[in-house]
Amino acid sequence: MRIQIVSIGDELLIGQTVNTNAAWMGEHLTLDGWIVGGVEVVSDSPEAICDALDRGLASNDAVLLTGGLGPTKDDLTKHVLAEYFGTELVMHEEIAAGIQAWFESRNVPFLEVNRLQAMLPASCTVLPNPLGTASGMWFEHGDKVVVSMPGVPYEMEGLMTHEVQPRLKAHFALPANLYETVVTAGIGESSLAALVDTWEASLPSKGISLAYLPSPGQVKVRLGVKGPSGDKEELQGLLDAEVEVFMKLAGRHVVGRGNMDIAAAVLGLLSSSGGTLATAESCTGGSVAAMLTAIPGASASFMGGVVAYDNAVKTGFLDVDPRDIVDHGAVSEPVVKAMAIGARKAMGTTWAIATSGVAGPGGGTELKPVGLVWMAVAGPAGAKAWCHRFGAQRARIVQRASRRVLTYLHEFIKNGGLPGLED
Amino acid sequence: MRIQIVSIGDELLIGQTVNTNAAWMGEHLTLDGWIVGGVEVVSDSPEAICDALDRGLASNDAVLLTGGLGPTKDDLTKHVLAEYFGTELVMHEEIAAGIQAWFESRNVPFLEVNRLQAMLPASCTVLPNPLGTASGMWFEHGDKVVVSMPGVPYEMEGLMTHEVQPRLKAHFALPANLYETVVTAGIGESSLAALVDTWEASLPSKGISLAYLPSPGQVKVRLGVKGPSGDKEELQGLLDAEVEVFMKLAGRHVVGRGNMDIAAAVLGLLSSSGGTLATAESCTGGSVAAMLTAIPGASASFMGGVVAYDNAVKTGFLDVDPRDIVDHGAVSEPVVKAMAIGARKAMGTTWAIATSGVAGPGGGTELKPVGLVWMAVAGPAGAKAWCHRFGAQRARIVQRASRRVLTYLHEFIKNGGLPGLED
Repeated sequence: MRIQIVSIGDELLIGQTVNTNAAWMGEHLTLDGWIVGGVEVVSDSPEAICDALDRGLASNDAVLLTGGLGPTKDDLTKHVLAEYFGTELVMHEEIAAGIQAWFESRNVPFLEVNRLQAMLPASCTVLPNPLGTASGMWFEHGDKVVVSMPGVPYEMEGLMTHEVQPRLKAHFALPANLYETVVTAGIGESSLAALVDTWEASLPSKGISLAYLPSPGQVKVRLGVKGPSGDKEELQGLLDAEVEVFMKLAGRHVVGRGNMDIAAAVLGLLSSSGGTLATAESCTGGSVAAMLTAIPGASASFMGGVVAYDNAVKTGFLDVDPRDIVDHGAVSEPVVKAMAIGARKAMGTTWAIATSGVAGPGGGTELKPVGLVWMAVAGPAGAKAWCHRFGAQRARIVQRASRRVLTYLHEFIKNGGLPGLED
Repeated sequence: MRIQIVSIGDELLIGQTVNTNAAWMGEHLTLDGWIVGGVEVVSDSPEAICDALDRGLASNDAVLLTGGLGPTKDDLTKHVLAEYFGTELVMHEEIAAGIQAWFESRNVPFLEVNRLQAMLPASCTVLPNPLGTASGMWFEHGDKVVVSMPGVPYEMEGLMTHEVQPRLKAHFALPANLYETVVTAGIGESSLAALVDTWEASLPSKGISLAYLPSPGQVKVRLGVKGPSGDKEELQGLLDAEVEVFMKLAGRHVVGRGNMDIAAAVLGLLSSSGGTLATAESCTGGSVAAMLTAIPGASASFMGGVVAYDNAVKTGFLDVDPRDIVDHGAVSEPVVKAMAIGARKAMGTTWAIATSGVAGPGGGTELKPVGLVWMAVAGPAGAKAWCHRFGAQRARIVQRASRRVLTYLHEFIKNGGLPGLED
């Protein structure tokens, strides 16, 4: 079964917005068993949208459109779809009431243009969108399906998850396409591949696919298997067995099974071990704390943190000895350890992590170039620090350092936090 | 002049890679005066690539392809292009020598597969790529042009900048195509549209285009104008005049001109006014600090922050009166104001901002539901607090509250920070 993605919007063509929607949809549709035939980005023009629909329907079983459903004058999709499918726009009163409730719950004035968002093609099944004011539209065209969704990513994701993916599964006989992900950290893609070399070579004969998905500071490994939907349980068993083998081979580099991130893994370990955590961030600037607090329930284990950008904050809030900053510089082993120890003491936590580095683009020296980051973990048995170089791009340095310091903490807690500690 | 972008690669279709190349190319081509007719993502298959070429050439003056130029078996683009243009692959010795030098300079073994990357179509102009081993290819087909580039982003960017864009400008007579962006915050898309309704209706007759680009907590507005390249100055004047009108109409909701974000705007104002800033975050959990420190040079104005997730951190680090927490709760006006005042005092800054809210999904009550956030700004004249409800999704609540508190601070600094302040 083939599916085409059509992304509508001049902002995508002129590069003002990166098309993350198509990537999200491609990933989730592939997991559902679809073959993504293609992605097309077209302008907000009736001709371009109609041409893309013609092309999409010619060689695919379904076409998913995003974008052009806002309340403003440049949003044309529903008008184009009504004409394409030979129907007219009618007022859907229950949708209008829903939009009005959406505005009222936010104390935002409900305008006539918003009410007009409930004017939708008569022949489509309206897909409710509780996350916004633009509804989804489901058209059946012979044995093919066309779906239109808003372009706002989280609204599209909500509609896909709760409406479109389940309806597509019910409408089409999709094959089973099972995937399992294991998250690893602290090891690069090629080193990881070398570690599992022999096993990986044995996978194709078992019908198992393997993909490495590297991102700054971690590598996700995705195992997949395809087959008739009736064989789902058997296929899952086959997959589970290989996941177990991989996790043994990757050993201490495994953060966890499932598409989780390292912050969630750390919070899980803290929760099961009864530990608490504080952060002391210089170069990561609040990013570690933000990663932790993005996880629901973080407040059970994460007490808080200090973003010690200025040296006065390092000495005043974290009790770093000003002489250490003078003697060794803020980006140094003594300072980063003192930051972690200071945060742990001040917040009364079991654990604390700290970062201090040169995020760039300015501030690098020959001895301490852009990308050099010191990281420390402090725990019941003392503190330990590590130094890494994380490339030259500010955003990537911050992301890699944030993930890496959480990975060190993860290993520490998992191993009881005792071995190899210096004071 | 219309141009089509074709991105080749299964990794794009299954969502393993986000198509940032198309956005980069779209932005730069638009600035050069091109109309980007469309973007197509196709799989690594000869039929898909040929079909995309047919479609691209049918309705565009040029087609730019990226991807499929690596040394491995799944890289088919040059073979497909040779066949498409009825030519054959020949060894380009000077390119082979360049690739060999590239490997030798990196102490990486030069393999036969790498030498084969210099086998390129006889009829094309080879575009040298000093950043990698895959050359670009420039084909002329009647009065149309087809260019093939590698998919590695920085190699594509290098080829575009130094070879493709200059050659396209020399080959085609491109018009002027000018854009200006204004960032607004604290107002929704439809309310903003209502505010500028009459003016917006007058734009088409002046040849000015307008687009709204909403994201959580802000709406970017993009004005555009097109015309003959000789009229560039006149067109820029026309655009500037309308940007001025829009900025007056949108008034205090304007964050700034240009494709900037609110954190960059705040840092810019701080820098020009000589002010410094501290943050005290509860529900935003470090996100405000992370937004600020993502901007290069943030350390000049941003001293640091406290992520006061636990109440003990609020009282211990920010001098919040424990009785206020008992009497009013942590999510309250007195506490959020005390947090901002405490952070400002402790870090000795001109300004401080604070957040305290219910990020959910748990912890909501009837009186303080999920999404309710108190925000405060403290400055030389005292502190002021506001309360908002930001929906029900944790990530969006954090993002909207972070942008909103920065927006309040922005307004404060812009207006001298004096009027309407309570103590």
